[in-house]
Parts: sequence; C-alpha cells; structure tokens
Amino acid sequence: MSLKLTILGCHSATPRVNAHPTAQYLEINNRHFLIDCGEGTQRQMRKYKVGFSKINHIFISHLHGDHFFGLIGLIATFGILNREKELHIYGPKGIKEVTVLQLKLSKSWTKYPIRFHELESKESELIFEDDKVSVRTIPLDHRVYTNGFLFTEKAQPRKLNIDAIRQYNEIDICDYQNLKSGKDYRLENGEILPNEALTFPPPPAKSYAFCSDTTYKPDIVPIIKDVDLLYHEATFLKDREHLCEKTKHSTAEQAARIAAQANANKLIVGHYSSRYNDITAFKKEAQEVFECVELAEAGKQYSLNSYPIEVLN
Amino acid sequence: MSLKLTILGCHSATPRVNAHPTAQYLEINNRHFLIDCGEGTQRQMRKYKVGFSKINHIFISHLHGDHFFGLIGLIATFGILNREKELHIYGPKGIKEVTVLQLKLSKSWTKYPIRFHELESKESELIFEDDKVSVRTIPLDHRVYTNGFLFTEKAQPRKLNIDAIRQYNEIDICDYQNLKSGKDYRLENGEILPNEALTFPPPPAKSYAFCSDTTYKPDIVPIIKDVDLLYHEATFLKDREHLCEKTKHSTAEQAARIAAQANANKLIVGHYSSRYNDITAFKKEAQEVFECVELAEAGKQYSLNSYPIEVLN
Repeated sequence: MSLKLTILGCHSATPRVNAHPTAQYLEINNRHFLIDCGEGTQRQMRKYKVGFSKINHIFISHLHGDHFFGLIGLIATFGILNREKELHIYGPKGIKEVTVLQLKLSKSWTKYPIRFHELESKESELIFEDDKVSVRTIPLDHRVYTNGFLFTEKAQPRKLNIDAIRQYNEIDICDYQNLKSGKDYRLENGEILPNEALTFPPPPAKSYAFCSDTTYKPDIVPIIKDVDLLYHEATFLKDREHLCEKTKHSTAEQAARIAAQANANKLIVGHYSSRYNDITAFKKEAQEVFECVELAEAGKQYSLNSYPIEVLN
Repeated sequence: MSLKLTILGCHSATPRVNAHPTAQYLEINNRHFLIDCGEGTQRQMRKYKVGFSKINHIFISHLHGDHFFGLIGLIATFGILNREKELHIYGPKGIKEVTVLQLKLSKSWTKYPIRFHELESKESELIFEDDKVSVRTIPLDHRVYTNGFLFTEKAQPRKLNIDAIRQYNEIDICDYQNLKSGKDYRLENGEILPNEALTFPPPPAKSYAFCSDTTYKPDIVPIIKDVDLLYHEATFLKDREHLCEKTKHSTAEQAARIAAQANANKLIVGHYSSRYNDITAFKKEAQEVFECVELAEAGKQYSLNSYPIEVLN
C-alpha cells in the first residue's frame, strides 16, 4: 500500500513564471495517474522527474484552460517519445473532439492508441477499477461541467502470522491463500482457529480526493467520507467570499469545512487566486476550522507510506 | 526607425525545463508583433517583460504544437486581463476552428474581438500593411502548410537639412512637407534646388524575415533579398542532413546558404533538435558559409536601432 502525491502546479487562471496552473501526479498502489494538465505541465513533469512512460491514465476535471491546455502538448510529446502503450483520458464531453481536431490540423496522429472516457453524468460514478485501485467521480459545482476524483486503494490480503501458523504443523502452504483472504482454519480435531489468530490485518487502504474547481458543496461529503488525503480548492480567502458565487469557487474556510465534515485525515488547499501574494494566509484561515492543513506548492510531495502523512519536502 | 527582436523560445519539438518552443517578439517601427506561440510562451513573455497589452497581431507559421499550442492560453489570459482591443491572428486555415472550439468548450468567450486571417495561398502575399510596416508571407516547405513572414518598415520621409534651408529666406515652413516627400524647390528667380541639397536621406527601412519550419528552399530568396535580419531554422547539423528530407527541416549550413544567397545582413539560427546538447556547433557550421551568424537563445535581443546590428544580451 502506498500513496504519494506530487503537486506540479497549484495556482489559478494564468500561468506565471513561478505560478503554475493545476496539475498533480498521483502514485497509488503502483498506479501512476496525472490529474489535470494546465499549460506547461509537461515542463513541470520534467522538472520534478515524473516519468512520462509511467502515465497511462489522465483525469481532467474540467475544460477550463488552467486545468486542460497542457494536455494536447503532453499527448504530442508522448508521440515524439515513441510511446506505444494505450493512453486513457477521462474528462468532460468535448475533450475527444478538441484533441482529435488538434492532432488532425497538425497531421500529428499518434502511433499509440488514445481511449477517451467522456463524462457527462451529474452523479458520482465508478470510472476506473482494477485489482489495485478504483476511481470515482465527485460531481462539483463550477461554471462548466466539472468533476473531482476519488482514488481509493483496493483492500489488500491479510498478512500471514508465520510464528502463529508454525505452531500448527498441519497448516500447509496451500492453505495460505485461504488465510490471506480471511477464512478461519478448521484443525483435524475439529477445532476452529479464527483467522485473526493466524493473520495480521493488512495496512489500511488509503484514499485521495481531488476537488477542484467548485463552490462550497457539502453534498460531496458522503462521497469522500473518511478520506485520508483531501485536496480542495481555495481560490479565495473570506475577504473575497462575495466572489465565490459569481466565479463558482471556494474560500479556504469553506475547503476546511468540507474536510471537517468529511472527517478527512489531512487537507491540502490550492488554486490560489493571483490576487494574493502571500499564500500562508490560506493555511491560517483553514486552520480556524480544521487543524491538519497543508499548502499546495509546486514540487511538494505528500506520502501516505508511513502514518501519519509525511510531508517529504 | 527601429527594429528589436526578442527570442522567447527557439527549440524544436517538446518543451523542456530550459528549452522552450518557438516564439518571438518583434518591435518594428512601434508595432508589436508576436511570431509563433509554442506552449509556455505566455510564461516566457512574463519572464522577459513583454507587455501583453501591446500585442495586437500574432503570426503563426504552422499548426505544429511547438509553434502553436501556447496560443489558446495566451488568448484566454488576454481575456482574464480584461483586454478590450481587437486581436488579429494570422495563421493557416483551421486556426479559427480550433480556437473557437476551445473557447466554446471552456465557456470562456473573450470580451474582446478576435479577427482571424486564415492563410491558404502557396504564393507570397501581403497580409498586413499600415503606414509604418508591411508583412508578407514567405511560403515554406514543411510537413504541414507553413509560412514564414517578412516584416518590412515603410520608407520614412526625408529629413530636413535646416542649415541648408535657412540660406534661402523664401523657403517657408509650409514648403517643408514637399521637401520631406522628396520634391525639388523652385526659387523665385526660377532656379531649381535639387531636393538632395535641402534634405538628408531617411534612415534606411529595415526588414526582418522569419523562416521556420522548412526544408532548404532557395526559391524564397527573391522574397527576402537584401533582408537586414534573417531568422532561419536549423534543426540539424550536416551530420543528420539525411533526416531533413523526411522531417522537412534544414541544417545550419543550409540556413547559411539561404542567408548568403539572399545577401542578408545577419543570420540567426534556431529550432535546434534536442539531439544536440551543444548548440555552438550550429554557429560554427553556418559560419563556414556565411560570416555573420548568431545563435537564437531565449531572452536574447537583437536591435537594429544602431548600425550594424547590436546584440543586446
């Protein structure tokens, strides 16, 4: 079980020299996901040593430029790097049309297949699942159709308690799979050994919720309940809360209220408006409601390998 | 008369941390033009202090990503910056469709007007003209429809030789316009004063030719004959000349041959392939054919205010 999040960009609206639009790289149970892809994301990936060939799934929350304009460049670069593996792109309806049009105009058809998974539902839906990870949408409320994404590790098998098992000669290696799956063991004398006596519980399955961009939307709380790590946009501070309704964004305090209601373990805020020069005020405001807050910054990594969450840099 | 060129990016293919795709900012006779707009151009514009509000005309050579993928982000940023002035975009047919589609999908219609000037001709044509500057296309030969651009200052009026004029009391201020336009002066005694006796020639009109991307194409020479400053792509060195036919690019030597045939004053080469770590070899190769060669580098400026050309940094 492992979960590591790398922030590639976390500012809103226009790219600036040291303020990059939204993009995140998530490593979860040996799956490697890119979340949003603002202009310049591929440059940020190179800067922070994200392996291009590892990415097979890209999740785009919405089609505003600061979350999306870097996608076509990344797709083209994959082609230049002679990618052959299939690439899956999850995003709002329209993402296929605009990507294909740009490839057509540049006569740069990729040699690798691209599978588009266009999203239209207003309900949370399962959009990816394998034996390691599942991904659900988190319907958000923004000026255009927008989804957040909930990434959840699959529960792993129980761990064998070898010392306990060795006390019973009759337990054979071919019984181990049943034990890992949680089954009790019946001895030849008929006695039932409860599974807990022979195994340890697996490390808890971890989860990460990405919520950007959105107004304050408490009805997402049941979807992200008890999430380990929550990224929630905080474009404004309370001083500009009046802008939230028009722009469909949130304040740091509102992000913290969602984290508190969801019983999240830790909150990361980002998507800061360029109106603010000092982002530390976002942490301070959020901490008035929810203690465990981190500020997203490009290059910052959050790991869930150890418990509690470790900020790597 | 003034001409200043700022290189914003000059590498081919994929953006890297310190290798930015093609974009140039040209100031010519108080007109401010952006030429090509690879991903990340707006960040480079901020880095090198290019005023966003000064740009009213953008020229796109072709629709490959490394010359074009930064355009939509710049258009969006102009909107965020509350631009009201009309923006003119010159580029291959299709540029309007893809731009409009992206604005539609993001529901981010600009409040300022955008005028698209879609190019289809395979002949050189005049695409911009006012009292200060004219711009012609330079048809190039690349994998997709591509134009270079020739920017030429309009000839300015002759300068009055006040000391000479003052020797003739009968020459009045209301005659000055005729003198500036080159007319001779008839004295009351019937004598003809040749214009050259009363005026100085204006500073020579300067010109800049941008040629990227293209194979070696000598038939552009008549279009750019006697150009002051020539940018010509040099993706490869001679060691990889065999790649030029397939990729439709040029070597540094070929760029220099065009400069020599065109009797250019100075050649700038750029659009280096990422295969080369040391770009100084491009200058060396070109100088075997043409003496006056500069290497394009992001942030480098070339000024024609003084004569000969001055490299500012």
